Amino acid sequence: MFFKQFYDQHLSQSSYLVGCQRTGEAIVIDPKRDIRDYIEVAEAEGLTITHAAETHIHADFASGIRDIAAKLNVNVYVSGEGDETLGYKNMPDGTIFVKNNDDIHVGNVTLKVIYTPGHTPESISFLLIDKGGGSSVPMGLFSGDFLFVGDVGRPDLLEKTVQVSDSTEDSAKKMYQSIQEIKALPDYIQIWPGHGAGSPCGKSLGAVPTSTLGYEKINNWAFQAPDEATFTTELTTDQPEPPHHFAQMKKINQYGNEYFKPYIVYPAGDKSLQTFDVRTRNAYHGGHRHGTVNIPFDKNFINQIGWYLDYEQPINLVGDNQTVQDAAYVLQLIGFDLVQGYVKPKDEVISQHVHSKDITGKEKNVLDVRNDSEWNQGHLEQAVHIPHGKLLGTEVPFDTNEPLFVHCQSGVRSSIAVGLLEKKGFKNIINIKEGYKDIGKDV
Amino acid sequence: MFFKQFYDQHLSQSSYLVGCQRTGEAIVIDPKRDIRDYIEVAEAEGLTITHAAETHIHADFASGIRDIAAKLNVNVYVSGEGDETLGYKNMPDGTIFVKNNDDIHVGNVTLKVIYTPGHTPESISFLLIDKGGGSSVPMGLFSGDFLFVGDVGRPDLLEKTVQVSDSTEDSAKKMYQSIQEIKALPDYIQIWPGHGAGSPCGKSLGAVPTSTLGYEKINNWAFQAPDEATFTTELTTDQPEPPHHFAQMKKINQYGNEYFKPYIVYPAGDKSLQTFDVRTRNAYHGGHRHGTVNIPFDKNFINQIGWYLDYEQPINLVGDNQTVQDAAYVLQLIGFDLVQGYVKPKDEVISQHVHSKDITGKEKNVLDVRNDSEWNQGHLEQAVHIPHGKLLGTEVPFDTNEPLFVHCQSGVRSSIAVGLLEKKGFKNIINIKEGYKDIGKDV
Amino acid sequence: MFFKQFYDQHLSQSSYLVGCQRTGEAIVIDPKRDIRDYIEVAEAEGLTITHAAETHIHADFASGIRDIAAKLNVNVYVSGEGDETLGYKNMPDGTIFVKNNDDIHVGNVTLKVIYTPGHTPESISFLLIDKGGGSSVPMGLFSGDFLFVGDVGRPDLLEKTVQVSDSTEDSAKKMYQSIQEIKALPDYIQIWPGHGAGSPCGKSLGAVPTSTLGYEKINNWAFQAPDEATFTTELTTDQPEPPHHFAQMKKINQYGNEYFKPYIVYPAGDKSLQTFDVRTRNAYHGGHRHGTVNIPFDKNFINQIGWYLDYEQPINLVGDNQTVQDAAYVLQLIGFDLVQGYVKPKDEVISQHVHSKDITGKEKNVLDVRNDSEWNQGHLEQAVHIPHGKLLGTEVPFDTNEPLFVHCQSGVRSSIAVGLLEKKGFKNIINIKEGYKDIGKDV
Amino acid sequence: MFFKQFYDQHLSQSSYLVGCQRTGEAIVIDPKRDIRDYIEVAEAEGLTITHAAETHIHADFASGIRDIAAKLNVNVYVSGEGDETLGYKNMPDGTIFVKNNDDIHVGNVTLKVIYTPGHTPESISFLLIDKGGGSSVPMGLFSGDFLFVGDVGRPDLLEKTVQVSDSTEDSAKKMYQSIQEIKALPDYIQIWPGHGAGSPCGKSLGAVPTSTLGYEKINNWAFQAPDEATFTTELTTDQPEPPHHFAQMKKINQYGNEYFKPYIVYPAGDKSLQTFDVRTRNAYHGGHRHGTVNIPFDKNFINQIGWYLDYEQPINLVGDNQTVQDAAYVLQLIGFDLVQGYVKPKDEVISQHVHSKDITGKEKNVLDVRNDSEWNQGHLEQAVHIPHGKLLGTEVPFDTNEPLFVHCQSGVRSSIAVGLLEKKGFKNIINIKEGYKDIGKDV
Repeated sequence: MFFKQFYDQHLSQSSYLVGCQRTGEAIVIDPKRDIRDYIEVAEAEGLTITHAAETHIHADFASGIRDIAAKLNVNVYVSGEGDETLGYKNMPDGTIFVKNNDDIHVGNVTLKVIYTPGHTPESISFLLIDKGGGSSVPMGLFSGDFLFVGDVGRPDLLEKTVQVSDSTEDSAKKMYQSIQEIKALPDYIQIWPGHGAGSPCGKSLGAVPTSTLGYEKINNWAFQAPDEATFTTELTTDQPEPPHHFAQMKKINQYGNEYFKPYIVYPAGDKSLQTFDVRTRNAYHGGHRHGTVNIPFDKNFINQIGWYLDYEQPINLVGDNQTVQDAAYVLQLIGFDLVQGYVKPKDEVISQHVHSKDITGKEKNVLDVRNDSEWNQGHLEQAVHIPHGKLLGTEVPFDTNEPLFVHCQSGVRSSIAVGLLEKKGFKNIINIKEGYKDIGKDV
Repeated sequence: MFFKQFYDQHLSQSSYLVGCQRTGEAIVIDPKRDIRDYIEVAEAEGLTITHAAETHIHADFASGIRDIAAKLNVNVYVSGEGDETLGYKNMPDGTIFVKNNDDIHVGNVTLKVIYTPGHTPESISFLLIDKGGGSSVPMGLFSGDFLFVGDVGRPDLLEKTVQVSDSTEDSAKKMYQSIQEIKALPDYIQIWPGHGAGSPCGKSLGAVPTSTLGYEKINNWAFQAPDEATFTTELTTDQPEPPHHFAQMKKINQYGNEYFKPYIVYPAGDKSLQTFDVRTRNAYHGGHRHGTVNIPFDKNFINQIGWYLDYEQPINLVGDNQTVQDAAYVLQLIGFDLVQGYVKPKDEVISQHVHSKDITGKEKNVLDVRNDSEWNQGHLEQAVHIPHGKLLGTEVPFDTNEPLFVHCQSGVRSSIAVGLLEKKGFKNIINIKEGYKDIGKDV
Repeated sequence: MFFKQFYDQHLSQSSYLVGCQRTGEAIVIDPKRDIRDYIEVAEAEGLTITHAAETHIHADFASGIRDIAAKLNVNVYVSGEGDETLGYKNMPDGTIFVKNNDDIHVGNVTLKVIYTPGHTPESISFLLIDKGGGSSVPMGLFSGDFLFVGDVGRPDLLEKTVQVSDSTEDSAKKMYQSIQEIKALPDYIQIWPGHGAGSPCGKSLGAVPTSTLGYEKINNWAFQAPDEATFTTELTTDQPEPPHHFAQMKKINQYGNEYFKPYIVYPAGDKSLQTFDVRTRNAYHGGHRHGTVNIPFDKNFINQIGWYLDYEQPINLVGDNQTVQDAAYVLQLIGFDLVQGYVKPKDEVISQHVHSKDITGKEKNVLDVRNDSEWNQGHLEQAVHIPHGKLLGTEVPFDTNEPLFVHCQSGVRSSIAVGLLEKKGFKNIINIKEGYKDIGKDV
Repeated sequence: MFFKQFYDQHLSQSSYLVGCQRTGEAIVIDPKRDIRDYIEVAEAEGLTITHAAETHIHADFASGIRDIAAKLNVNVYVSGEGDETLGYKNMPDGTIFVKNNDDIHVGNVTLKVIYTPGHTPESISFLLIDKGGGSSVPMGLFSGDFLFVGDVGRPDLLEKTVQVSDSTEDSAKKMYQSIQEIKALPDYIQIWPGHGAGSPCGKSLGAVPTSTLGYEKINNWAFQAPDEATFTTELTTDQPEPPHHFAQMKKINQYGNEYFKPYIVYPAGDKSLQTFDVRTRNAYHGGHRHGTVNIPFDKNFINQIGWYLDYEQPINLVGDNQTVQDAAYVLQLIGFDLVQGYVKPKDEVISQHVHSKDITGKEKNVLDVRNDSEWNQGHLEQAVHIPHGKLLGTEVPFDTNEPLFVHCQSGVRSSIAVGLLEKKGFKNIINIKEGYKDIGKDV
């Protein structure tokens, strides 16, 4: 049996290629839209991709399950469990809707479907048995967003992104049940999850790519909860607000999307569009175009820009040509194909800043852009609180001509806020550089 | 904790980067000579490589443990177990020679040394405990060439490559003991081995990159052997002949080597050197320079060219510029830095072939270049047997003017033999295309 | 003034970027469909592409004049000379149709239009005067396919590709006139032509990228002809047959085409399509799929595959993934966007060959695939003549079960013919390796 | 004949490959240390590099003439003209020292040596005659640093870089003589110079890569001078100070240097070395390490860093890994192989700045780092003048605790000065952003 995990840094997402060398067949699990990597690896191993499967309707990236069906003519397997109205629509002809205990055969490799709801109502996992390798016991579990290394999938996305009201608690209870049932599997099976550290699909995912069930039983908090109520409370508390693009992901992954096609970003014709500056934070603050919003093209790019994308509106990007092309490509992984053009950097504004240690606490106008739980744990008395993700659509109650101090926890989100505030007409924005964590501290 | 496996296709070798995010420290386990990948990944994660460790004196590739010490000024850990005369020499100042039960601390991550001889006398494994992640139980075992997925390390290399006489059986017994002791560890720990499928360090390594102890107990033959004698017999039987370069690897990894430095291959000045054609088999047979030996630059490149390299003699390569530079680079991973130049292809010889199905069995001169065990399982009556790896140094007892039929099992090794026979003066070489497996078959 | 020549190896085509550094404006002359290189160079120089111009309706590659207009919103200049029915159609709004003596201003750089018909009825050239550089005399001439280094453009394409009957001789006379008129310009002006060596737009183009008028007057045959009649005869004699794709190029460049969009070639679904093997000749003959046609992906790729492309029919390519993607991209430069998939090589057929020196002259069935003028200069008595470019559509009058010897002049085109003959059912094709030039010679 | 110009953006330098297709021979003229590009192009054309020649002892980059001799075993031609003590030393055995009127034969291409002193005493040019192409008249002149497009080579480098006293005026007179003599050649010959715009080897080089003699006669100032005295005055006036590295270049190109070898830059061990930050100016000012000097890795990198390099001292670079490797490579082109390591960026200092328009003229401490001629044309009254290139070695007469305003003409050089002043202990440095040109202007 051949096995390979593909980890996407931008999505913190894992997909998998599993092949049977005897028959030359292979399956991709949870594919991304761009399927070239799977093909390349399969071919290097003498395998042909003949199957594709998906653990659930993803909320955080654009699924490639329909792409791979269209381009490679594979057998497609998705969940037939859960409430039908929340299930898959417009799947390609021949799609097999699998249920608990169904088997998928890829040559001599068997994937047994296990129904593991909680993150979403239709979530399934795949238990792999390498019969070709001579084994009759399971080797590992493709656990999707049900079980992560150190965490489990959050249950609140349906309610928060597609307004399935009051579904969070019910989902949390299902997750508790799924956890109890999975305990029956042997300790030695490997856990192959759908996400790693940095994913907003859970609260505390680990940076180790795979685990084992026995290890998780001992170390994962979800296995320690003494009863359903405790579990449910812990799971539903302090889940961060999901980025705006999650709603769009749910929609296109449930109903379908355009197929992935590469495209080229040319110099922008219309420069009045919403514009993101993908250079480093330093470069942006050292000189940027007025009103552009700085989302550096690094590992957090998708998680941050996801807050500000309107899927109906084209955007422009500021940066060097190659980085812009790369950023536009990565945006395609969340189904956004509308980068209209790129714009060269220009020194229209050099950001103003003050070090956190130099904040006196007496500053008149202070905007705090942290999220609710951070705010609740303490804040400057005079500060006004608007979480960064809501800044675009919220009126900021200060005089645009007066100095406006803006801060977050450590300086990343307030950097983004600078451009948003410029767009809103503020003329004297002062970024509190190291954020709330160092205010008044002599570091 | 951060964890990443680096898998080298050409060496079928795994090295590992493990980091503690809290302290920013990281360790590389079993580094290759070229350490750039480790640095790049560490930096992307905000880690600094501060430690490096090695499981044993490798026999199949050039270790980078001295390189990483020299270039990054890290703390170096190697085995202090086993017979001193067979142990590490000329290690950098400050090297720590660890023994069974010693701990290596990398920030909040602990690696406990477990002495696991058998493949080599000094072989150790590292049991990882992620204290920073809040765990007090082990997560996994860096098992080097002791325990693979589906196999264990071969015990015969010392005897076969560096002539430590009669060591094979003794090593096999030690391996049996190591296996028994490791059984005490929990089933759920992950197994992170030093090699994958294709490595000549074992007989039947799997193509799954990692496993768990519990899974191996059930599926790995080494855990099934009822007693030491059965185990020893099975382990020492039918181990393939190790490629010639293994002896050189043992030497440089024990005593030290030049540090890795990139170099450029220019057009060959002296064209009389031993010359390897790294193009595909098809391209070679469609037209090649007389006397050049075809070792296609694919996943088997190192395993095949290893048979024919003399580490004292520079070589030339035939192929397009980029492939030649890549091949020269990969040769550096086995410590060979002597590609003198490259030569453009030329149609001096178009290979002659006959399909296996057209072999009558009456051909007069037949050379069988398979290995001993293949030969022993059946061969053409009139055939002469010289294993391909010995062809360069053995007289071939045929008239160089008569037609000479050459075959192996499936056509790969006889392709290599064609050029070797040309060098020896044979003028009428006929390659039996599909090899012994299809002789007389109507496929 | 900034000046850069872009030379495309596959098209033997030159396009140009000229910029005025004072105003930051730049013009592209004779752009290809993919305009990224122009943008990249312009930006690196601080220039913005504001203008684009074309010397004539190209017959050999897909013009990018409409692409650049659509993507960069530039001022577009094309010829308004010549017969209207043969002129540009469907040009973007705002296109300026220039005539003899018109000026195009790009910042402080002036391009004066000179009407230079002959290659095509509307052909114009641009005489550059670098006023920004302080000069009032011309620096050079963008001569398109009017004047090459060592040659002039062929006058027969309209007649041969789009059936404008009897136009060749008339065009040749116009060319004579254009040459006479250009003589009045100063000797010191540079000649910046539209093509270099290898282009089928002329008979004997030089491999020096630019020249001067004075040098051409002395060395170019076209300036030596004593009178119109001599010139016309020489120009119209022995022009090679234009590749099939020329007709399509004329059409799309006159009427418009899809805009350039990159695309990805996936593994072929339908393997029954016309299939080209883009590997080297050696690799193909060493083993290929039956009926696939070998067009190696090298500098002659476009010139050779142009003979066999049907613009209505998708094709497959055989080769490694990267080469196939590259080949598909290069095909886009001649407006062919229909590579449906790629196929891995397979050893279905190993070509048979005979060295030219071993040809006795007595072979029964011989096919000569050279062009007419080669055939006319001598051929084997018994040979049948079908030029390679017509082989697909012509019946080959031999028994498909008998040995069929095929040759061209030096072995390139007969290699292509092998696959075409396989498709036609021939079972015993023998390639005469070194071609007609070495038949019977002991080389 | 095959002809190709290679233009290096970082050196503003042109080298050339000329080949005779009939014999397969080729010559490189004025090679750089890294000769891979020449080899690649030659091979693609079926040519072998058999000759190499150099126009003069270069002062601005590391010659590759000894490298190409060592690696490709070619026939080497250098000037045997001029004062012997200033001529080539330690050339490889077999080097041919050519003199005026000598011929170099490369297949059927002839290069006639023309002695053209002025830039340096030994400078020669090569007049190309393409006999293989059937011509008996010259096609063009490889004019080295004698004649540029729009300019001639500066005559003052020997005096300024290697202290050949009083040589400038004498060289200028020789240049006048060389110009007079070259006038006899035909107008139509092409001029293929050794440098383009941006090179400090002349004052006003054009951005057009080649020219013709006739065009230069009309447009190049050097041909307009009415007499030797006028010419000499104009040529020797206002030549900018040559960068420091020129002296080193003269030395290694006269006496020889290490051969080019690629190397890898690892994370810096010793962080106390002189450190250059190769990121963009914006990124540097937005946050940089204290005392690091910003030389952005762009087209001006070599010209700027050349002022601050000590060839005996290793340096560190700040930037992302790839840019640092690229910058280290480009430094090898000027013979500097001592990049010891790289350092990640860190926000130790955010630069202070003031817009030029906000300068009152009353600022107390002002440092002007422009060059002498700029200073002489006007400056702030209270300013102290230290040209940027001398800043490292000159005491700056201000109190390091007081605010220090620093400016150049447009903001580039003062940006460099910021880090130099930090190193000197200044604690309150304010960069006048748009430089002297906009002081007091309301732009």
